[in-house]
Amino acid sequence: MAEYKLHYFNARGRAEVIRLIFAAAGQKYEDIRFEREQWPEYKLKAPLGQAPFLEITQKGKTFQLGQSMTIARYLARRFGLAGKGPEEEAEVEMYGDQITDILNEIIKIHFEKDEARKAESAKKFFEETLPNILRTLQSKIEKNGSGFLAASGLTWVDLYLVDVLGWLGEKKEHLMANFEHIKALDTKVTNHSKIAEWLAKRPQTPM
Amino acid sequence: MAEYKLHYFNARGRAEVIRLIFAAAGQKYEDIRFEREQWPEYKLKAPLGQAPFLEITQKGKTFQLGQSMTIARYLARRFGLAGKGPEEEAEVEMYGDQITDILNEIIKIHFEKDEARKAESAKKFFEETLPNILRTLQSKIEKNGSGFLAASGLTWVDLYLVDVLGWLGEKKEHLMANFEHIKALDTKVTNHSKIAEWLAKRPQTPM
Repeated sequence: MAEYKLHYFNARGRAEVIRLIFAAAGQKYEDIRFEREQWPEYKLKAPLGQAPFLEITQKGKTFQLGQSMTIARYLARRFGLAGKGPEEEAEVEMYGDQITDILNEIIKIHFEKDEARKAESAKKFFEETLPNILRTLQSKIEKNGSGFLAASGLTWVDLYLVDVLGWLGEKKEHLMANFEHIKALDTKVTNHSKIAEWLAKRPQTPM
Repeated sequence: MAEYKLHYFNARGRAEVIRLIFAAAGQKYEDIRFEREQWPEYKLKAPLGQAPFLEITQKGKTFQLGQSMTIARYLARRFGLAGKGPEEEAEVEMYGDQITDILNEIIKIHFEKDEARKAESAKKFFEETLPNILRTLQSKIEKNGSGFLAASGLTWVDLYLVDVLGWLGEKKEHLMANFEHIKALDTKVTNHSKIAEWLAKRPQTPM
């Protein structure tokens, strides 16, 4: 039996996909959350000096992992949420990297201080980049018939997609009108009993 | 026997790590390179409308993969360059994601048009971000004693690190003076007979 300790700010941010994987797997873990002013103390413990990071103890040995996507893929493989066989697993990872491209862009726009550049980036993102990516994901969901990104069923990238769509705020509903298969996936994932339980009880944070 | 076709611009860019993995594995593949003006034609064939992408044919079935890091991890697993066991494999991926953070920053600075912002970003990158990451990687190489990032020996992230260091141009030598273990890894990888053979024969391109 392994023990897991997840370390991150008191925020969804780049750690929420990991929490969703734990929730879907029904796996217990310590959800350690710290405030900005406590970061210097946690930074010293972090394997890359970055958050999130995960501490895993198994057979008396402790092992640390940084980088949110690395943690997500590792746990997904352990919990059977990575896809079936090396090819589907790779395909799932490809969608993961693609969704990270969306998240990175959202974060970049959020932190842009120059208002003109912020508006220009947001326009390009909402009118081109995001619809293009969603079109690819939608056609995949449609084609494979499982209702999820992988033909074999629920994987970690479905959780990740739902999480990242949540970042779009009030723009989400409007966008979803053009992407019925993604909307259906979103509903299916958020109604998944273990996910719904986590969404209902998770700490409410602005980001 | 699988057949591989890699598609990318006539550049090292985000595809070179994949070519280095093929080289280290001694695996034949078609290195399909196109010019900017041919991109619209290839874009239609790309699984995500992006390059690089890889086409794999095995047992009569063809399968496509996009996203450079996904392709790199998939091939590394096939060719025994992913690390030994799930924990080391995850650790190796963590360094991969970390090196991507370096590459993304280099590309961001390269394409920044505002000269003041470019200078500011470059200063922060070369004085803080990059040395911090290199310090982490160096301490890992030093600690595990293999001369590589993974304790078990050469993996795909050693190739990736060497590739990304190559992007630093004339700044590389100066930096390496402070990172002897990374410099030793760089020498070891570039002198690896199959890698050396590829480096000598690869097409010379500006990026």
